[in-house]
Amino acid sequence: MKLTEHLYRDSLALLTDFYQLTMAYSYWKAGKSEQEAVFTLFFRKNPFQNGFTIAAGLEYVIEFYRNFSFREDDLKYLAEMEKDGLPVFSTEFIQYLREMKFTCDIDAVEEGEVVFPHMPLIRVKGPLIQCQLLETPLLNLTNFQTLVATKAARIVLSAKGDPVMEFGLRRAQGIDGALAASRAAFIGGCSSTSNVLAGKLFGIPVAGTHAHSWIMSFDNELDAFMAYAEAFPDNCILLVDTYNTVNGVKNAIKVGKMLREKGQELKGIRIDSGDLAYFSNIARKMLDEAGFSDARIVASNDLDEHILSSLKMQEASIDVWGIGTKLVTAYDQPALGAVYKLAAIKNKSGEWIPKIKVSQQSIKINIPGFHSIKRFFNNGKAIADMIFSEGLEQDRNSFTIIDPIDPTKRKKINPGELKSEMLLKPVFRKGELVYSIPDIREVRQKTMDKLDHFDKTHKRLINPHIYPVGLEESLFDLRTNLVLKVKSQDVE
Amino acid sequence: MKLTEHLYRDSLALLTDFYQLTMAYSYWKAGKSEQEAVFTLFFRKNPFQNGFTIAAGLEYVIEFYRNFSFREDDLKYLAEMEKDGLPVFSTEFIQYLREMKFTCDIDAVEEGEVVFPHMPLIRVKGPLIQCQLLETPLLNLTNFQTLVATKAARIVLSAKGDPVMEFGLRRAQGIDGALAASRAAFIGGCSSTSNVLAGKLFGIPVAGTHAHSWIMSFDNELDAFMAYAEAFPDNCILLVDTYNTVNGVKNAIKVGKMLREKGQELKGIRIDSGDLAYFSNIARKMLDEAGFSDARIVASNDLDEHILSSLKMQEASIDVWGIGTKLVTAYDQPALGAVYKLAAIKNKSGEWIPKIKVSQQSIKINIPGFHSIKRFFNNGKAIADMIFSEGLEQDRNSFTIIDPIDPTKRKKINPGELKSEMLLKPVFRKGELVYSIPDIREVRQKTMDKLDHFDKTHKRLINPHIYPVGLEESLFDLRTNLVLKVKSQDVE
Repeated sequence: MKLTEHLYRDSLALLTDFYQLTMAYSYWKAGKSEQEAVFTLFFRKNPFQNGFTIAAGLEYVIEFYRNFSFREDDLKYLAEMEKDGLPVFSTEFIQYLREMKFTCDIDAVEEGEVVFPHMPLIRVKGPLIQCQLLETPLLNLTNFQTLVATKAARIVLSAKGDPVMEFGLRRAQGIDGALAASRAAFIGGCSSTSNVLAGKLFGIPVAGTHAHSWIMSFDNELDAFMAYAEAFPDNCILLVDTYNTVNGVKNAIKVGKMLREKGQELKGIRIDSGDLAYFSNIARKMLDEAGFSDARIVASNDLDEHILSSLKMQEASIDVWGIGTKLVTAYDQPALGAVYKLAAIKNKSGEWIPKIKVSQQSIKINIPGFHSIKRFFNNGKAIADMIFSEGLEQDRNSFTIIDPIDPTKRKKINPGELKSEMLLKPVFRKGELVYSIPDIREVRQKTMDKLDHFDKTHKRLINPHIYPVGLEESLFDLRTNLVLKVKSQDVE
Repeated sequence: MKLTEHLYRDSLALLTDFYQLTMAYSYWKAGKSEQEAVFTLFFRKNPFQNGFTIAAGLEYVIEFYRNFSFREDDLKYLAEMEKDGLPVFSTEFIQYLREMKFTCDIDAVEEGEVVFPHMPLIRVKGPLIQCQLLETPLLNLTNFQTLVATKAARIVLSAKGDPVMEFGLRRAQGIDGALAASRAAFIGGCSSTSNVLAGKLFGIPVAGTHAHSWIMSFDNELDAFMAYAEAFPDNCILLVDTYNTVNGVKNAIKVGKMLREKGQELKGIRIDSGDLAYFSNIARKMLDEAGFSDARIVASNDLDEHILSSLKMQEASIDVWGIGTKLVTAYDQPALGAVYKLAAIKNKSGEWIPKIKVSQQSIKINIPGFHSIKRFFNNGKAIADMIFSEGLEQDRNSFTIIDPIDPTKRKKINPGELKSEMLLKPVFRKGELVYSIPDIREVRQKTMDKLDHFDKTHKRLINPHIYPVGLEESLFDLRTNLVLKVKSQDVE
């Protein structure tokens, strides 16, 4: 194994569950591979009991899709798979995979958009076999970044304008568990990353100063501080808690005075342990009294949005927040759980047949058919999202939307005076990219702008007010009827 | 950005925290870059409140280290970094990085080894600047795989010999969050992965059959089952819960009869929702009564070791376990929290100076000096691990080991009648690989064999008996004295 080779693929076609390939083979054998189908990718619950979710990962999806093809060594691997001495896949099927070109239409919600449970984040229309092969990679590439962007947005909202630095690389779940997390954290509103490779590849600002080992490698802390100030006189943030935080601040002040004599200013200090409320206030007082009111205090140590909020409430003197593990692993809920379901399939007469997956849990029943999402705004505030079947007459006096889980929750919308926006944007048409990928800084800005359209009650950390998202009445009825039809066939 | 390019690096030298580079620059400026140092990588608590941890990730570390060098585009990126219009790093330093060759000695615990808090998993000796630059990548590559291998071992032990299939790709934390997890899960004892790319790259068996979408793409379930059996007559496992589990089993039995007429056997069924204890027992009864006692029942649906154990206790009729999200994200504790600390540094007189990082929390104080680990066995059972300073006379009648957190916990070891093993193995000497990387199947076997040496009370899921790991008395005293010395310098 070569570490880097195993991650590098000019195509990631094999980054999939084996059952996608066995199903592909079976579709192909059953003559169904070119049958047209629609699949949707959606999640069922906002993560972290949050009131919203931030979509992310689409650029990865686009890159995956554009570069999709089976390499010769991939095909060789598949061709050599055996079961009881017989090949698993036929030579003809391997050849079919070799020649396969993607021709799907893909629509998706843009990165940085505010999204909610049940709505399609990605809608794929195309030959059944192609739609199927996209399931696992689309989920892998979307689930995680959406999760982390949402976590970052929660943290950034809690910081109320203070910069949040992401530095989770060392505890992240693998190499791309770090890179993709740094990207998504920036989309969610973080100001910088510690991950240099993420900085280079995505154009995210990088930040960082020094660790305890720097201090420990010297005979004493003051020598270490002085040497660091020597190397970075114009960007000197000193970590003060290696031995004793109060002594550390005293030493930092000595360095600050030395720097000032040379016409430079101490940028700040960092505290990485102990009671952050207590020590940040002591440090602030010491710095202010010594004439260093502009020196900023950076805090870190297993922080998340809850501790951050608590420190804010305690009026801790913290200006910049460093967040690692809890952000990049989405510690309190490390998986989003989005799914990708068949929603409709074209029969031999060219008719779209909506499809349902029934479950004992209502929340696990999908939304059938070919559908879209419209968001309504009143005076600049988002008031409701409607999921509706494509082809629904839009020029109506009113719509009723119904909660997909609780049918007693309904909302009437009179679109007359309202602005509205369609959330799904065309990304691929017949396999060709028709979408222009925005710069990541624009995406980050979009997250902030889009969140501004939502009432603050939806953005509360705990027990947020539920934003109304519903199925347009006729779609709701279609779904109910399909479920009842399946259940009526039960033999029990 | 190109999805695959951003992951591919012939070197991952930039996969590091920015502060490693600012520190490297400062060491270099302070003339300390070649000063010899020792760093150790260790964790402070077993994850999941488990009684042990399984080491994993060393092969990644080796590959990282062997391929380490700054690419020209990496150096260009660093050279162009600016702060207030001035370059962050000098041209001479960029040239230093360009010419840098790793020359460290690295010792490590092998993958698949049973390890415990406080002991060094990796020990790096070499020029300070090189040791420092290794911190973040070593932690990233080790933390996650060790975490997942441990989670897998917990699950596999709970399954008491039943095969455990890993299929977490879709919910994993990014591309390598999946690949590295599949690898570590196999090391921890899983039998197969759904991830085809992991199968190809690491030589892990892949497994999988079909999803609900396969069923939904047909007019009815029986047609779908029949078509799947057509494609895979000799490896037919049918997912029975798309519409109604009992009906699904009836349809699977029909397919089983059809297969038998052709001289084939139904391999089994899979249940992915509902009450697994209830439905697996009904399904077992139905299959047995229809003459399909050999058909296996595969269960999945957000399982972890606790649900698995509970299903075992309820005598659910489950033969094979499919585990995804909870395994690959280590859901209940998604980060291990290993750290990498300076343990000793050579002064100008060539003397090793042990180094300590003091903290208000005793658990955060590192172990100073250059140390090793010896495991003692009595009649084939591991009885204690001793962490001791290199150079300690081994030919003694007795050793006392002391718990690093609670000094009242002590154990006397009379090595006379005991077997013992040194856990740290030489991996690199002066930058050259001296270790032969074992096949991943051997590593998996090692995990199982090594675990056999531990009493079952240490392997309990909940409240395990604590295995004794301690500092040899003189190392304990060295550490205590260093801490007291630092604290005596406190000005408060």
